[in-house]
Amino acid sequence: MIQKQGRVLSFSSRPVLLSGAAIGGKAEGQGPCANEFDRCYEDDYICCKTWEQAESALQKEALLTALKKADTNAQEVDYLFSGDLLDQCIASATAAKDLQIPMTGLYGACSTFALGLALSAVFVGCNAAKYALVAASSHFCSAEKQFRFPLEYGNQRQPTTQRTATAAGAVLVGNSKTGCCIDAALIGTIQDLGITDAANMGAAMAPAAADTIEKFLTQTQTSPVDYDCILTGDLGAVGSRLLCQILFQKGIDISAVHEDCGNLLFDAKKQDVHAGASGCGCSAALVSTLFRRRIENGLLQNVLFVGTGALMSPLSVQQGETIPGIAHAVLLSMKNNKLTK
Amino acid sequence: MIQKQGRVLSFSSRPVLLSGAAIGGKAEGQGPCANEFDRCYEDDYICCKTWEQAESALQKEALLTALKKADTNAQEVDYLFSGDLLDQCIASATAAKDLQIPMTGLYGACSTFALGLALSAVFVGCNAAKYALVAASSHFCSAEKQFRFPLEYGNQRQPTTQRTATAAGAVLVGNSKTGCCIDAALIGTIQDLGITDAANMGAAMAPAAADTIEKFLTQTQTSPVDYDCILTGDLGAVGSRLLCQILFQKGIDISAVHEDCGNLLFDAKKQDVHAGASGCGCSAALVSTLFRRRIENGLLQNVLFVGTGALMSPLSVQQGETIPGIAHAVLLSMKNNKLTK
Repeated sequence: MIQKQGRVLSFSSRPVLLSGAAIGGKAEGQGPCANEFDRCYEDDYICCKTWEQAESALQKEALLTALKKADTNAQEVDYLFSGDLLDQCIASATAAKDLQIPMTGLYGACSTFALGLALSAVFVGCNAAKYALVAASSHFCSAEKQFRFPLEYGNQRQPTTQRTATAAGAVLVGNSKTGCCIDAALIGTIQDLGITDAANMGAAMAPAAADTIEKFLTQTQTSPVDYDCILTGDLGAVGSRLLCQILFQKGIDISAVHEDCGNLLFDAKKQDVHAGASGCGCSAALVSTLFRRRIENGLLQNVLFVGTGALMSPLSVQQGETIPGIAHAVLLSMKNNKLTK
Repeated sequence: MIQKQGRVLSFSSRPVLLSGAAIGGKAEGQGPCANEFDRCYEDDYICCKTWEQAESALQKEALLTALKKADTNAQEVDYLFSGDLLDQCIASATAAKDLQIPMTGLYGACSTFALGLALSAVFVGCNAAKYALVAASSHFCSAEKQFRFPLEYGNQRQPTTQRTATAAGAVLVGNSKTGCCIDAALIGTIQDLGITDAANMGAAMAPAAADTIEKFLTQTQTSPVDYDCILTGDLGAVGSRLLCQILFQKGIDISAVHEDCGNLLFDAKKQDVHAGASGCGCSAALVSTLFRRRIENGLLQNVLFVGTGALMSPLSVQQGETIPGIAHAVLLSMKNNKLTK
């Protein structure tokens, strides 16, 4: 049964993240979350000829690893919800090719993984699917080339820029009596406050994150103290500060429970990543592994995961258009654990 | 209730296309389907400064027109499922900005509208949504510039090429006792037979269409004679021929009931469109208007609409990658009409 509270969907069957996997690149393997990854490659080409193929290989390996961990195979999976940042979501299409799972291609920039989780919960929650895979990926080199400059230019990066994660995350969602589950979801609306600086995506996404979090709290009649963690992905340092400010002005103080995947993936001081990490793969990797495990281990009782996306294209930026932001929320918690309610 | 027959989802509540709208460009207004459009613009800039803005304007007008026809407004709509061909689906993001409807961005190339219909039927069918909007758009000029050459180059087009429709279609899906409804849906898997010629998308998509149609017929234990129309969108002349051949070799003869949106939108002889029309907006426009009306008027009892997408990017083509195809099927029929079963 799926119930609506305002626009928040609650899943009474509480679909479970049966398994999760993350595959990363070199910088990710040198960062503080290295141990969360199932594998980090030394060479960002991931044994491929192009960066686009490399990103696709990351996503495919994440999908296959998630399947393997759940001791299942692609034939048993009813749906795949996946997406990435590349033009025409080519990394996801290529990754899905050999799996032969019915595929819903998603585009939500860095909000893609949260959107996929929400859709998978709807499909599993209404018995349209027994098993659904959710995946998202990004790659620093393919993203730089597409959105900014070829790496060979060695261009200077602004302090507000975020480093696109070379990473993919995937989870298998299905019914189970226990595990980290999806309690509720809220699909967001576009917010656009007129930001045109593609080197400051945090600023473009923060208003959308604020809007979605405010709506979720209001519609579920909860407040930040009801959550162990409100996890955004990926606002980075600049966007995280803005998010807390915007919500504080509305009388909502999330500072005590707020974390951001973009602030966690790299060591900002040692790794020269400016305002932190970004890219679909960042939150996909950390939610699939780190946060899923923290919930399963009882370290966190619940996590309101809010994926945030900056819906610009290289062309729209060149044309001087503003950058619309969107954010989708998914409430994760432990199912049937005495520690949780 | 949503039931599964193999991987075909059946919607016992039979969500209805409450209204539909289509907005087109100049060539569309000169074609045989001109009267189906709510409006066709003489100037393909659609009163905008860029072709990308123009495409977005088309989609927004289609959405607003569909809402108006159903005598409802954006605040009442729970979800918007939309997508387009442009990098990062920018036309859809921009079109949705002012509407403030929770948005799921889709990427399925020309299969996007069928995918959106399937998702809307799941959401409405399981009561996650009361109303859902589905939209897709494409624009000849923005697509040529992005996928092929700037129009100013005046490049020669190959006989197998299809002309991207300058069009948008939108439908409002919800519960109603009567109307053109969504009975069933099948989300497809990627098929890739190794086509690398971006000027022959029909060939890249035909195997996916054949696979989805064969699965739908097998899993529902039906045959082509059970359908008044098996409607693909958009294979064009080349892809349509290939589809019929592939299925004929498998012992399935759809030739008597097959139609393709790409063969209907333009007059191939008079309008110099080579192998026909393509683009998300083509099938979105024709299903939203022409085919919805034909079902409502009893001219067609049922239509198996199969949206077909070529999942290439300009870069993947330049890199010599093959073009994965995907096709999603949606069964449309009349609800509570004595003419239908």
